[in-house]
Amino acid sequence: MSVHSVKLVTIGENLLASNDQAAAHNRDRLSEARVLALNLMASPGAGKTSLIVGLLGALQGRAQIGVIEGDIAGSIDTEKVVAAGAYDAVQINTGGNCHLEANMVERALIDLDLASLDILVVENVGNLVCPTHWALGEHLKLCLVSTAEGDDKPIKYPEIFAISDVIVLNKMDLIELVDFDRDFFYESVRALNPQAPIFEVSCRTGEGLAAWAEWLLSRREELLCVSPS
Amino acid sequence: MSVHSVKLVTIGENLLASNDQAAAHNRDRLSEARVLALNLMASPGAGKTSLIVGLLGALQGRAQIGVIEGDIAGSIDTEKVVAAGAYDAVQINTGGNCHLEANMVERALIDLDLASLDILVVENVGNLVCPTHWALGEHLKLCLVSTAEGDDKPIKYPEIFAISDVIVLNKMDLIELVDFDRDFFYESVRALNPQAPIFEVSCRTGEGLAAWAEWLLSRREELLCVSPS
Repeated sequence: MSVHSVKLVTIGENLLASNDQAAAHNRDRLSEARVLALNLMASPGAGKTSLIVGLLGALQGRAQIGVIEGDIAGSIDTEKVVAAGAYDAVQINTGGNCHLEANMVERALIDLDLASLDILVVENVGNLVCPTHWALGEHLKLCLVSTAEGDDKPIKYPEIFAISDVIVLNKMDLIELVDFDRDFFYESVRALNPQAPIFEVSCRTGEGLAAWAEWLLSRREELLCVSPS
Repeated sequence: MSVHSVKLVTIGENLLASNDQAAAHNRDRLSEARVLALNLMASPGAGKTSLIVGLLGALQGRAQIGVIEGDIAGSIDTEKVVAAGAYDAVQINTGGNCHLEANMVERALIDLDLASLDILVVENVGNLVCPTHWALGEHLKLCLVSTAEGDDKPIKYPEIFAISDVIVLNKMDLIELVDFDRDFFYESVRALNPQAPIFEVSCRTGEGLAAWAEWLLSRREELLCVSPS
């Protein structure tokens, strides 16, 4: 569309290649420590932190979970997940950056006791666009979307749905109140990504969280060759 | 935080300066035509298009409204606002760009009959971070946020609240269902931006839309020296 965009893309390619290297390094470290890393991406307010809190409840006593919280500003989410039982949590403030990058995660990993963790959830900055281009070293990309955002998010933000390994639809308790066409949503997601599982949850009521948490544990076993506990 | 970020900022400064020039040019054209331009910014799913539809209903017969729709992909919103009575509408697909830029709006303005318009609403890409840095030529920046996103958005995304001329809180019909602390939200906004008016609306029920629309008309009169109709 614009000369500016073209310039940004050219410059971006070098940065992205360098980012991919750092991400591969992070992934190696995490795999070696048998820590399944999840890159949790969503709009602001879709319920990212609530989903982590739900996971902590669902896997209590069965998995040690660490969290890296990425935010423009503030540490409110880190406080929440620690209170909810996270084994360890690190806050990254990006100071205006609209997404996390691999070297930010690399730095945060220094502060985490990886040997004690089973799962690491990296909560990205709330944004359906920019995080899609920046690998962090995750094993799985999760796209979280809420019924309150409307059923047209896959059509408007196709890339994040296309590249995600799993999609979670939150705020199912509100679905009757917000004109959300479930069939339309599923058809739109399937056109972009035929194979990713879709989990329907309500972090408010707890509905669906156990099934999603079990799936995550089984993915850890498969991807990291860990025996079932 | 990172070398990458520093590089991006340096490069960004040139682009932003060039963008600001294009934005000033757009603003001059719009002011000359007595068209009040609004840069409508929000998360995905906060209700940007519904707010425009609400404005069209509230000012029916009193103002001619044009719309520029910015999306990563799709033209679903342009179809909606035309069906709802927009005088004219232009879709911009950014092809992956996470925000609109002034030269995209400049190009869209060619397709609009400015002499026939009173208000131009530019619906930015759904994103609480990136659009804050890119002026489009607007007279007013509007930050839309919904109760379903939670009361902590000002703390996590401070810049957009700080720079906006008006803040609209949507989905008031859901406020009792979503643990939204109204006082906490107002205190957080006021700490960042003491003077911007805050309007509470529900695009679903129509609550509050008339008051906001009247305010917008009065701002047009003040800013563009137009006599009240």
